[in-house]
Amino acid sequence: MAKYKAPLRDMRFVLNEVFEADKLWAAMPATQEVTPDLVDAILEEGAKVTENELFPLNRTGDEEGCQFSDGDVTTPAGFKDAYNLMAESGWMGLGGNPEMGGQGMPKMLTVLFEEMLYSANASFALYPALNSGAALCLDNHADEAMKEQLLPAMYEGRWLGTMCLTEPHSGTDLGLIRTKAEPNADGSYKVSGTKIFITGGEHDLCDNIIHLVLAKLPDAPAGSRGISLFMVPKFLINEDGSLGERNPAFCGSIEHKMGIKGSATCVMNFDGAQGWMIGEPNKGLACMFTMMNYERLSIGIQGLGLGEVAYQSAMDFAQERIQSRAPGGAKYPEKAADNILVHPDVRRMALNVRAFNEAGRAFASYVAMQLDTSKYHEDEATRKKAAALVALLTPVAKSYLTDRGLDCTITAQQIYGGQGYIREWGAEQYVRDARIAQIYEGTNGIQALDLMGRKVVSNNGEYLKLFAQDIQDFIESNSDNAAVQPYLEKLGASLETLMQVTGNVITRAKDNPAEVGAASQNYLDLFGLVTYAYLWARMVAVAAPKAEADTSGFYSAKVKVANYFFARILPEAAALAAQVNAGADTLMDLEEELFYGE
Amino acid sequence: MAKYKAPLRDMRFVLNEVFEADKLWAAMPATQEVTPDLVDAILEEGAKVTENELFPLNRTGDEEGCQFSDGDVTTPAGFKDAYNLMAESGWMGLGGNPEMGGQGMPKMLTVLFEEMLYSANASFALYPALNSGAALCLDNHADEAMKEQLLPAMYEGRWLGTMCLTEPHSGTDLGLIRTKAEPNADGSYKVSGTKIFITGGEHDLCDNIIHLVLAKLPDAPAGSRGISLFMVPKFLINEDGSLGERNPAFCGSIEHKMGIKGSATCVMNFDGAQGWMIGEPNKGLACMFTMMNYERLSIGIQGLGLGEVAYQSAMDFAQERIQSRAPGGAKYPEKAADNILVHPDVRRMALNVRAFNEAGRAFASYVAMQLDTSKYHEDEATRKKAAALVALLTPVAKSYLTDRGLDCTITAQQIYGGQGYIREWGAEQYVRDARIAQIYEGTNGIQALDLMGRKVVSNNGEYLKLFAQDIQDFIESNSDNAAVQPYLEKLGASLETLMQVTGNVITRAKDNPAEVGAASQNYLDLFGLVTYAYLWARMVAVAAPKAEADTSGFYSAKVKVANYFFARILPEAAALAAQVNAGADTLMDLEEELFYGE
Repeated sequence: MAKYKAPLRDMRFVLNEVFEADKLWAAMPATQEVTPDLVDAILEEGAKVTENELFPLNRTGDEEGCQFSDGDVTTPAGFKDAYNLMAESGWMGLGGNPEMGGQGMPKMLTVLFEEMLYSANASFALYPALNSGAALCLDNHADEAMKEQLLPAMYEGRWLGTMCLTEPHSGTDLGLIRTKAEPNADGSYKVSGTKIFITGGEHDLCDNIIHLVLAKLPDAPAGSRGISLFMVPKFLINEDGSLGERNPAFCGSIEHKMGIKGSATCVMNFDGAQGWMIGEPNKGLACMFTMMNYERLSIGIQGLGLGEVAYQSAMDFAQERIQSRAPGGAKYPEKAADNILVHPDVRRMALNVRAFNEAGRAFASYVAMQLDTSKYHEDEATRKKAAALVALLTPVAKSYLTDRGLDCTITAQQIYGGQGYIREWGAEQYVRDARIAQIYEGTNGIQALDLMGRKVVSNNGEYLKLFAQDIQDFIESNSDNAAVQPYLEKLGASLETLMQVTGNVITRAKDNPAEVGAASQNYLDLFGLVTYAYLWARMVAVAAPKAEADTSGFYSAKVKVANYFFARILPEAAALAAQVNAGADTLMDLEEELFYGE
Repeated sequence: MAKYKAPLRDMRFVLNEVFEADKLWAAMPATQEVTPDLVDAILEEGAKVTENELFPLNRTGDEEGCQFSDGDVTTPAGFKDAYNLMAESGWMGLGGNPEMGGQGMPKMLTVLFEEMLYSANASFALYPALNSGAALCLDNHADEAMKEQLLPAMYEGRWLGTMCLTEPHSGTDLGLIRTKAEPNADGSYKVSGTKIFITGGEHDLCDNIIHLVLAKLPDAPAGSRGISLFMVPKFLINEDGSLGERNPAFCGSIEHKMGIKGSATCVMNFDGAQGWMIGEPNKGLACMFTMMNYERLSIGIQGLGLGEVAYQSAMDFAQERIQSRAPGGAKYPEKAADNILVHPDVRRMALNVRAFNEAGRAFASYVAMQLDTSKYHEDEATRKKAAALVALLTPVAKSYLTDRGLDCTITAQQIYGGQGYIREWGAEQYVRDARIAQIYEGTNGIQALDLMGRKVVSNNGEYLKLFAQDIQDFIESNSDNAAVQPYLEKLGASLETLMQVTGNVITRAKDNPAEVGAASQNYLDLFGLVTYAYLWARMVAVAAPKAEADTSGFYSAKVKVANYFFARILPEAAALAAQVNAGADTLMDLEEELFYGE
């Protein structure tokens, strides 16, 4: 009815067989200690802790939610114990800087553990996800003293980080923020203002909370060029690392939400709280983007993780549910009805979910591979190329993984019939928990605009050419592999469509700046689809040669799901291209007041 | 933030201008008394009661939900008062048989009132929706004595009807039901069994509840050919119409659901309850289908109504929300930021919702027009053709209106950004309330199978030819209208695509019965899209000539939304056709056990 087993077999396939992570890691000094044995142990232990400790708290956490009373936030029953257990086992520092007490595991590995977290308990997963991003931001932009003060405790999970950006009137448009930071004599700042939608702004999981807060200096330029970043702890930190006075950074209330009810979403009031600047004055947004980009991939994985647990749960239901007979006649005449998976449309739903989940897993790992390469590779040109791919693909990962994640949870819910709508069965929670991922961390519309505008049109498609080259290289390197030719032809055609459409938008945008935003969402969907075609082709290239000798069915299933993807999902590319090519006029023609009605 | 005004202007456009209902009504004896003045009065009063009485209970009803205690169900605060007021004003019998105290209003009118009900309060709307369908079933299949006993009270709203089909092991496959009906000496039956998901199975709104229950006689044939229909009242009814003993038809519990929380979804235990057969023994399913088909259109309208209120609410938010600047530079330089509707992608979202809502309203009215024609027209051939169109279009109405309804609520929610996820803003409730409409009353997958199998393949496309002829007639009758030629060309091409695809499936299904179910969902989506292209073309044909002289902007807005539909939505037809044409193999190849995972 609700089921989660970490998909270790598929994770290992992606990691070891499709991307051969061991070769990459062995080639980079920083990751040479990441041995296959270590990776296996982490995956196995990660599966255990998420399946056994977090998943059992998922439904109860949803029913109970977080509670707010007098400035304090209580997480659902069991969250604190599970958190302590995980922190003690070192999970909070899995990808952290080893010089500061982190475990230094590469992103290609942590991305798989993140998926397990989100599958097992999306509300819970957000606490460590925010912490990891905050730690990364500090590691990149804070001075040594602050790093030494904070990072070991954050990797140990004694303290957890937050990201304080949004204000009631300022969401997408951060240039509008009003939170102020006035200099104190000692070099610190007095931070005042109200932040909303702060995940983990207050809770009972650990001793201290490290807020990363965007605010404006008294003399700051207007707009987004006048934003600075501050570290504001819940409790001030003494020289020896012990906790001092309560800083006036208080939770005013928590939101009542559609889902992720076990995640504390806080209104935070900074009433002259003491804070310390991170990075340069007025350059805070750039620092914050280190965290935001981290979280964007992470939130993409929220979509993937929920799609995965929704699939497993739906199949657990389907395995028991019998209803009506197979199209050609009874398949199980000894039963009162056939299993529902005899029905082509139930299979269509299941295959749809699975085709997106498996491609999504490969996609997250591909982006992680670029992240690791951009960070650890010894060759500068290689690092730069990887960094360009990360920039290009981050908005796609956030948006496409979460849009398809919601689709997958909805489709999985549909497989249950009426039971899908009943809370105790669990399927509807996945939908509610997945929905937020399209909204926060920059709405998916903003991701699409980032992709189309900053990552494609602004640089005349330069990043895209790098990605297209990667795809072309793969196609050419498989030119003598007869088994994958049909896939490569379709992949090549869809890539050509993407490149043509890109050229059209770049051209049109020269005359009309509205063309970028008009194209963006359909363009991102097309981009995602072509990317998934690439990843399915790569998976088939590995799986097809092994299918015949494999008695488990894993490789032949992989090929069959790929066949479904190419035959019944990829055709959407043509429609998306036509939508992009239709241009901006039909969007911009209607007068604004005629949208609002009477 | 949450807003609802009945879209009377658009409703009158569809009713009076697009379909010229007055001409149809004047031509049929049964509807000749439906004058324009009467219609106007009903629409105005319907708008008032739904806006002022029901909409204010929508959010509170969601938060409070129905309560169950000791067999009794309490509806949310305010529901009973609003219900009494509406019943006293005659709304429960609006479409009812005038010989039994109903008001005999045609479906083309009641369908608009239904939309208002669902927009204002989807949970509340279900109580009258079920009652109307139950009354229709009784009116068609019960004997005169039972009709006289029940219908006047049901039209007055003193009693409300239910539909008791589903059992824990029997949803789609009603042949599996186990509820038994044993004959009593007096001609009544003793009904025993458990029904689940019974909307309005128990509540506090009125004096009596009339359950229509599917059950099996002791000697019934197996499967769906052995199902009979029974009328089982909550309280037995004395000769004089007063209420007698409590019948053992008890509510065992209510479901905790994702949404429609103000609607009581009951487990009903019939413990030898006294019931009376409706229609012939073992022919109950056919009788029940009178009610089910009624409800299918009604549930389609649930999708439409929620799409409409979601749009209005989102635009109410958008009107106040300023964030970032227009693509070409500030549109409102005097403000801190521009209104969000300057952004092309926000417009895309709004136009998407609106294009589906307005076409959906026209579609529901078109189906209603066929229903009225099939019921009231004096010419038998005309009645028969209309009945065929109703049979063909009912599954499309249920499925396409609800699928697009969910899409619309999700898209509208996205326009809010973060606020869309917060309960108090209301947008997320529309999503949760819309989700059930894809599931109940026959899942949308079942609707698609009904369309593709029973309504298209089984009769070799005969019904479809009638519908296509309707479209062709429209195209030809506008052949000299230059303003609509570009729309007609696209409509004609999409219709041709639909006809080709239909032929392909009919051919393939001869060799492989799985082809029907494999094609069904994509086929229904294609069918819906072509139908909406037809309705948009009809709306443009009326609106375009009036646009220039119109200072309100209504007609020019209609044309511009049509332009959006044809340029940016209709291209999806090509992808859907390709998906249907891809056939069944990629769905059926994967071995069943390989779906289930480890």
